[in-house]
Amino acid sequence: MVHLYDDERIDYLLAEENKRIIQSASVFSFSLDAALLARFTYLPKTKGKILDLCTGNGVIPLFFLNHSRVPITGVEIQERLYDMAVRNVKLNEAEDRVSIIHGDLRDMPDYFKNDKFDLVTVNPPYFKTSDEVVRNDNEHLTIARHEVYCTLEEVVESSSKLAKSGGKVSMVHRPERFIEIIELFRAYKLEPKRIQFVYPKPGKEANMILIEGVRDGKSGLSILSPFYMYNEEGKYTEEAEKMLYG
Amino acid sequence: MVHLYDDERIDYLLAEENKRIIQSASVFSFSLDAALLARFTYLPKTKGKILDLCTGNGVIPLFFLNHSRVPITGVEIQERLYDMAVRNVKLNEAEDRVSIIHGDLRDMPDYFKNDKFDLVTVNPPYFKTSDEVVRNDNEHLTIARHEVYCTLEEVVESSSKLAKSGGKVSMVHRPERFIEIIELFRAYKLEPKRIQFVYPKPGKEANMILIEGVRDGKSGLSILSPFYMYNEEGKYTEEAEKMLYG
Repeated sequence: MVHLYDDERIDYLLAEENKRIIQSASVFSFSLDAALLARFTYLPKTKGKILDLCTGNGVIPLFFLNHSRVPITGVEIQERLYDMAVRNVKLNEAEDRVSIIHGDLRDMPDYFKNDKFDLVTVNPPYFKTSDEVVRNDNEHLTIARHEVYCTLEEVVESSSKLAKSGGKVSMVHRPERFIEIIELFRAYKLEPKRIQFVYPKPGKEANMILIEGVRDGKSGLSILSPFYMYNEEGKYTEEAEKMLYG
Repeated sequence: MVHLYDDERIDYLLAEENKRIIQSASVFSFSLDAALLARFTYLPKTKGKILDLCTGNGVIPLFFLNHSRVPITGVEIQERLYDMAVRNVKLNEAEDRVSIIHGDLRDMPDYFKNDKFDLVTVNPPYFKTSDEVVRNDNEHLTIARHEVYCTLEEVVESSSKLAKSGGKVSMVHRPERFIEIIELFRAYKLEPKRIQFVYPKPGKEANMILIEGVRDGKSGLSILSPFYMYNEEGKYTEEAEKMLYG
């Protein structure tokens, strides 16, 4: 049995057989971004280990469960979300494979020291706190979406330090920050190797980017085939449907 | 009358009413890349002036003739191609609007001094001379395709110096050099503002990139809707047909 708070509900992760997730509209619900990142990323299947920074309610580790047998660690700074992630692991009986740490991603390189990862995934806050967008009154959502506790540079720096040489770092972010991400990846020795742009529908500009870097990797970039969420009639594309419903 | 050498032919620029171009399979024929760049780029219509570096046989200025009334200057280092470009301008009776310079793009910032351009276009050599690709036995094609006379950095540096503050630089290149291009644009004060990836067909990786930077511009990037050359049946897409045949 897993405890549920009043504002929480249990959803099925439809694309993932037998996987369920505790969500809360007022605290944290996973978004398309997490599904896109999980779909995009290279995944070690049987060897190595995975770290998911900014794990929120642990949705990325849950997406990985059916597709990889390696140990996964999630890191979340917000206690309320950390607690939700721990219960999500329990709800899916994955305690033997997924562990959740309540901590600051900036402290993780010191915490793990020479213990490095084959894959680091991260769905970080997208907005600068200085951005003149309306910040959410809800503290949990503000922290998840705005750079309150960490900047993009700190996210990239920590990810790079936590990846082993030849290991991968996968991130989902917004096109507006794309140039900055490229420069930070290079500055922290993460060579961009695969990029995919996500378009809401044909004829529109990209509204999401997926990028994978290799720690100490050689240069050589692939721009993958675009991913479209909706077709011209406003329905999910086949690839979006597959991602969401399996 | 315009002189034609034995290996030359006159083609119609099909998408451009009344425009013809001297080409030569053994020296230089314009490629899709030039058509893509001409289609992609912002074009000053009535005010300002345009510079086209690595102009080859002058194809980019010819593509612009029907769409802009501003003066256009092309620069070409190879005498044989320079001569072809001059004859192309004459063939299209555009001597009053297009001038061709026989020179090295690296000398152009000194040559033009404080005379700056509203738009600089460039379709530079794509391959490092150190690349282990087979270099073409044909000297003209080798120079057009390999960084024999200028490196990518020199192309970006000269382009940046020749653009006025707020002016645009548009380039076509390969995805493999994309990260390098982003870094060089930023290093030389060209803020990437519009990027479009060109895909041979749906489901394939991009094989060409189009990028526009603004000299001294503010950050803020748009990733345009992808451009596809062929559809799944291997036929030109509507947008490719429009580009090629008008």
